[in-house]
Amino acid sequence: MPTANDEIQRHIFGLLVENKVGVLGRITGLFSARGFNIDCLSVAETEDPTVSRITLVTAGDSRILEQVQKQLNKLIDVIKVMDLSEEPHIARELVLIKVNAGAETREEVFRIASIFRGKIVDVTPKTYTLEVTGDEDKIRAVINLLKPLGIREMVRTGTIAIARGQRVL
Amino acid sequence: MPTANDEIQRHIFGLLVENKVGVLGRITGLFSARGFNIDCLSVAETEDPTVSRITLVTAGDSRILEQVQKQLNKLIDVIKVMDLSEEPHIARELVLIKVNAGAETREEVFRIASIFRGKIVDVTPKTYTLEVTGDEDKIRAVINLLKPLGIREMVRTGTIAIARGQRVL
Repeated sequence: MPTANDEIQRHIFGLLVENKVGVLGRITGLFSARGFNIDCLSVAETEDPTVSRITLVTAGDSRILEQVQKQLNKLIDVIKVMDLSEEPHIARELVLIKVNAGAETREEVFRIASIFRGKIVDVTPKTYTLEVTGDEDKIRAVINLLKPLGIREMVRTGTIAIARGQRVL
Repeated sequence: MPTANDEIQRHIFGLLVENKVGVLGRITGLFSARGFNIDCLSVAETEDPTVSRITLVTAGDSRILEQVQKQLNKLIDVIKVMDLSEEPHIARELVLIKVNAGAETREEVFRIASIFRGKIVDVTPKTYTLEVTGDEDKIRAVINLLKPLGIREMVRTGTIAIARGQRVL
């Protein structure tokens, strides 16, 4: 069980990397070699198609993660690494949820979607598919409200994050 | 250059996998071993914390990707694989864009955000940070409109996708 001394906390790493075959495997390998599970990860291209940006969320001993960050910086295909959780940042996630919405629960699903400013993007006689965007707390809240109605399928992008203010990675 | 005979097209794979250290590396390794670049990928947990869901987008020879899909199915930590691009599906992406928004361009950035139903999630005297959600075409359009104004930083989740109708992965 984590204690205050272990300094275990959630870290959100932002990485700029060369958009090359195999780079993602080398980066995730650095974490798995030290036994860190990756809670969520997303990678996509940037304005420059030769450069990709990765957002990686993991929890663990902060001192060991600092070492991992140094090793990431040494990888030839890694252009830049930043621990966004160490400064003011905006974190967002997108989720698609297919939930039971029969005659009796439809109204409730519709209401939850409205409250969380979600969109209903697909409808069948038995299901609604919702698109919801927000921070971790909001996504957790909407999932917890929909769970008792019966979530059939859920896809999450995982968290992405950007520094507040003018600072860039 | 791709020709019709090569059957090169964009594929969106949805995977359910065991949430274990090293799984992501083994999956991306199967693609990189065959020279496929992963255009975007996202992984996050599902309703069941022992299971993660990966969405992976790649382009290439459909016949070879079919073989890769068979190999993915053989991996012990892979519970299920589906090529979502082969059936009706909903694909969405979330992007955070920090763009120049000085006295002269602020109004234009604000207008673009409104048109695309984006949200302005951070403001400085020189920049706006926008949150936009949509399919690939919409995200491409908003990026192309903001580019001339000066994009300072951009983070994308990559595409996630869910089957239309009642079908689940």
